[in-house]
Amino acid sequence: MLEDLKKKVCQANLDLVKHGLVIFTWGNVSAIDKESKLVVIKPSGVSYDDMKPEDMVVVDLDGNIVEGTLKPSSDTPTHLEIYKAFPETGGVVHTHSTYATAWAQAGCDIPNIGTTHSDYFAEGIPCTRQMNEEEVKGNYEKETGTVIIERFKGINPAYVPAVLVHNHGPFSWGKDADDAVHNAVVMEQVAKMAFISFNINPQLHMNPLLVQKHFYRKHGPGAYYGQDKK
Amino acid sequence: MLEDLKKKVCQANLDLVKHGLVIFTWGNVSAIDKESKLVVIKPSGVSYDDMKPEDMVVVDLDGNIVEGTLKPSSDTPTHLEIYKAFPETGGVVHTHSTYATAWAQAGCDIPNIGTTHSDYFAEGIPCTRQMNEEEVKGNYEKETGTVIIERFKGINPAYVPAVLVHNHGPFSWGKDADDAVHNAVVMEQVAKMAFISFNINPQLHMNPLLVQKHFYRKHGPGAYYGQDKK
Amino acid sequence: MLEDLKKKVCQANLDLVKHGLVIFTWGNVSAIDKESKLVVIKPSGVSYDDMKPEDMVVVDLDGNIVEGTLKPSSDTPTHLEIYKAFPETGGVVHTHSTYATAWAQAGCDIPNIGTTHSDYFAEGIPCTRQMNEEEVKGNYEKETGTVIIERFKGINPAYVPAVLVHNHGPFSWGKDADDAVHNAVVMEQVAKMAFISFNINPQLHMNPLLVQKHFYRKHGPGAYYGQDKK
Amino acid sequence: MLEDLKKKVCQANLDLVKHGLVIFTWGNVSAIDKESKLVVIKPSGVSYDDMKPEDMVVVDLDGNIVEGTLKPSSDTPTHLEIYKAFPETGGVVHTHSTYATAWAQAGCDIPNIGTTHSDYFAEGIPCTRQMNEEEVKGNYEKETGTVIIERFKGINPAYVPAVLVHNHGPFSWGKDADDAVHNAVVMEQVAKMAFISFNINPQLHMNPLLVQKHFYRKHGPGAYYGQDKK
Repeated sequence: MLEDLKKKVCQANLDLVKHGLVIFTWGNVSAIDKESKLVVIKPSGVSYDDMKPEDMVVVDLDGNIVEGTLKPSSDTPTHLEIYKAFPETGGVVHTHSTYATAWAQAGCDIPNIGTTHSDYFAEGIPCTRQMNEEEVKGNYEKETGTVIIERFKGINPAYVPAVLVHNHGPFSWGKDADDAVHNAVVMEQVAKMAFISFNINPQLHMNPLLVQKHFYRKHGPGAYYGQDKK
Repeated sequence: MLEDLKKKVCQANLDLVKHGLVIFTWGNVSAIDKESKLVVIKPSGVSYDDMKPEDMVVVDLDGNIVEGTLKPSSDTPTHLEIYKAFPETGGVVHTHSTYATAWAQAGCDIPNIGTTHSDYFAEGIPCTRQMNEEEVKGNYEKETGTVIIERFKGINPAYVPAVLVHNHGPFSWGKDADDAVHNAVVMEQVAKMAFISFNINPQLHMNPLLVQKHFYRKHGPGAYYGQDKK
Repeated sequence: MLEDLKKKVCQANLDLVKHGLVIFTWGNVSAIDKESKLVVIKPSGVSYDDMKPEDMVVVDLDGNIVEGTLKPSSDTPTHLEIYKAFPETGGVVHTHSTYATAWAQAGCDIPNIGTTHSDYFAEGIPCTRQMNEEEVKGNYEKETGTVIIERFKGINPAYVPAVLVHNHGPFSWGKDADDAVHNAVVMEQVAKMAFISFNINPQLHMNPLLVQKHFYRKHGPGAYYGQDKK
Repeated sequence: MLEDLKKKVCQANLDLVKHGLVIFTWGNVSAIDKESKLVVIKPSGVSYDDMKPEDMVVVDLDGNIVEGTLKPSSDTPTHLEIYKAFPETGGVVHTHSTYATAWAQAGCDIPNIGTTHSDYFAEGIPCTRQMNEEEVKGNYEKETGTVIIERFKGINPAYVPAVLVHNHGPFSWGKDADDAVHNAVVMEQVAKMAFISFNINPQLHMNPLLVQKHFYRKHGPGAYYGQDKK
C-alpha cells in the first residue's frame, strides 16, 4: 500500500544525507496520505546505505502499525502529534543537523535577522520550553509533540514550518516530504549564518520591513518570486 | 540572440554551485552586451540542475523582456541599477553565501585586514544602510540598487567590486560574468577569514601600506602580478 | 593469525579517514581478541593509502610483538592500559579530530548539553589532568593510559566510552573496533555542537531528565531504540 | 634541466589544491637543487587546472630566470631569502589558507597548545612585525623575506618550519617540496584547532613538558615515532 509515498519518503530520507544534515541514522522523514490519514515513516535505527522503499513503515494517527515488518522511528509519536495539530502538514522531518541542534542545545530561538530567513519563515524559529518530569518519564516522544504544539500558540505553523526542541534538536514540516526536507536545509543554513552574525555584531538589528517583504514576496496571494504555476 | 553570452551566463550561474556559494536557487548571475545594452540573466526560481543556456532571459535596461519564455530573476531590477550606475561593469552576481551574508546580517562592512582582501578590493567591502518604508514597500528590488549606489558615493566601483545589502546579502560585479563570480568567491573567503581574525584578536591592526601595495601590484598601470597579457 | 580481526582493524582505520577524523597518519585503531588476549593494532607512521590487513601488528597485553614486521603505533601502551582496566572493551580508537582535540587543548570536559550526547554518553566526556614530569619523562604512552584510568574513578567506562587527554586529544572505545570508531565520530560531532552552543549562550542549561531518558532509551534492559536483535 | 624537480614541484603545487589550502592561484611551492643552487618555482598567476611540469620556472638565488618562458611567482624573492638564510631548507610553500591567514591577519603567533602542534613545531608559529614604508615601497617581496629572517633570530628554522607574515599569510618550509606542503597542512590544522580552543577556554594552559616530549619523540637522535629508516 502507498507504494508511491514510500518511494518519496525513502528518497527524502536519503536526501537528508545528501544535504549533510545527518550522520549514521540520526534523522527521519515521514509523510501523510491525506485521504487515508495513514503516515509513512522511516524505520528505527536502520542504516541509510541499505534503506529501500519497502522498509518504510505505515502507521495510523494513533501509532498502530498498519504495514511493515520493522519498528517505526522512535520519534513517530512526535511526528503524529504534528500531523494532528497542524492539519495542513504533508511531511515532517527530524534531524540533529549541526547548527540547528546547537541553537536547540543553547535553548534559544533562531532570530530572524535576514532575508534568507524571511524568505521561508515569517518570524524567528521558536525553541520549546524544557520538558518536566511527568513529560519525560511518561509518553516522552508524544509529549515532545505536545510541547511543540504548546509553543505554537499564536504562531501559524504554515508560516513558521520549523521548531527547535530544547536541548534536543530541530523538527521541520511542509506540504510534503520534499518540502519538509527543503525547510530543514534552510533552517540549518540560517542557524549557521545567525551564529556567525551574532559573533560579528551582538547588537545587530533586523529591519522588520524586510521580514514582511521577503516572506510575502514568496508566500500568499501577492507572491511574485519564481515561475508562474500553471 | 546573444547565444554566446547566454552560454557564459548559464555557466557562470553553475559555477556559483561549484564554488559552494549557493544552495537551491539562491543566487543569480547576469552579463551585459555593451553594444546593444541588453542584459542576459538567470530565470527566477529555476533549479541549477536543469538550467540550460536557452533558459536565460534577455531584458533591456528598463527591465522589459526582450527574449525568453521564463520570468527573469526577481533581483533583475537591482542588477540593472548597477549596470546603469557603474558603466564599466560587464557582469553582476548575487548570492546568499554563508559568511558574506552573515556580515550583511550583522550590518557591518567587511574591513580590509589582509593582503588577500587588498589583492582584489582597494578598501573594505561596504554595507548599505537599512532601507526605509517607502523603499521596501515601493519598487523594492530597484530601490535595493539605489541604496547600493548611494553607498558608493566617493568609492570607485571598479576598485571595490562588491557590496553587502543590509540584512540581506552580497552583490559583486566585474568586467564580465566570470570576473563577477571570481569576486564573489573572493568576498566569501575574506568574509570568513575576517570573522576568524576578529575572534582571535578584536584589536587587530591593518597596515595601510599593504593595502596600497597589494591592490596596485595587481591593478592599474604599475601591475606586475601574473603573466603579461599580449 | 587473527586474519579476520586484522581485516576489521584495517578497515576501521580506513573508516577514520572516510569520516574525516584523521589526516596523514594521525590516528589509530586497535581491537582485542578476547580469547587469546592479543591486540591487533595499526603500525606506526604508515600511510592510510597503502595500508593492508597484513600490515597490522599483533601484540600481547604487555606490549610484546607477537606477529608483524612493522613497529606498532607509538600509542600502543595507552591502548593496552585501556584494555586491561576496562575489560568490557573490544576496540580502542585514538585520533586528533578537530573539535574533540580543541576541547582537549582547552583542558575542558565536553559537557553533556543535548540528547545527541546523551544518546551515547551518560555524562560529560571527561578530560584528564595534566601529566607530571615523572609521567612524561618516564613511560609516557603507558602513563597516558594511567591518567585516563585515574580519571574514570567513579565513571562507568561502558557508559562513557571516550576521554580527552589534556593538551593532546581524544580516545574512544567500544565493544569492537567499529563501535569505537562510531563513538569517535559521535564525540567529534558533539564536541563541535557544544562549541557552537556555548558561543550562542554561555548560560545554557541542560535538562538532567533528558540525559537519563536518552541514554537508557538506547542502553540497558529498558532500551527501545532501533530494531529488536534476534 | 632539473626535469625531475620540476615534476615534484608541479605535483606539490597541485597537492595544495587537494589539501584545500588554495583556491584560484593563491599559493606557490618551490624547491631548491642543492648542487646547482637553482630554484624551481611555480609561474605567476597560472591556473592549477592547466599547470604542467614544463611550466615551472628555474631561477638562481639572485632571482635571474635561468629557464622558462613564464614569469616566476611574484613571491619568488621571498622564497629566495628563505633558502639563503635557512640553508637546510629544500622546499618552500606560500598559501593563503583560511585559518593560518586569519591568525596572520590578527597579527598573532599561533601558540603551541597541544601535542599535534608539538609533533611538528618545537614552539609557537611566529608572526612577523608590521613592515615599514621603506620595506613596502622598496623591494617588497624580498623585504618580506627579510622580516621573516629577522623574526627567526634565536629560533631554529628546522625546528619551527613555518611563519606568519603580518596581515598577509603563512609560509612554510621543509627538507623538500613535499615536506614543506606537509608542514603547510599541519599549520592550517593547528591554526584551526587553536582558534577553537581559545574560544572554549581563553585561560587554557599548555603543559611545557609535552612540547619537549612530542617534538623529540619525532625529531632528533632519540626519535622513536614511525618505522625505522634503513
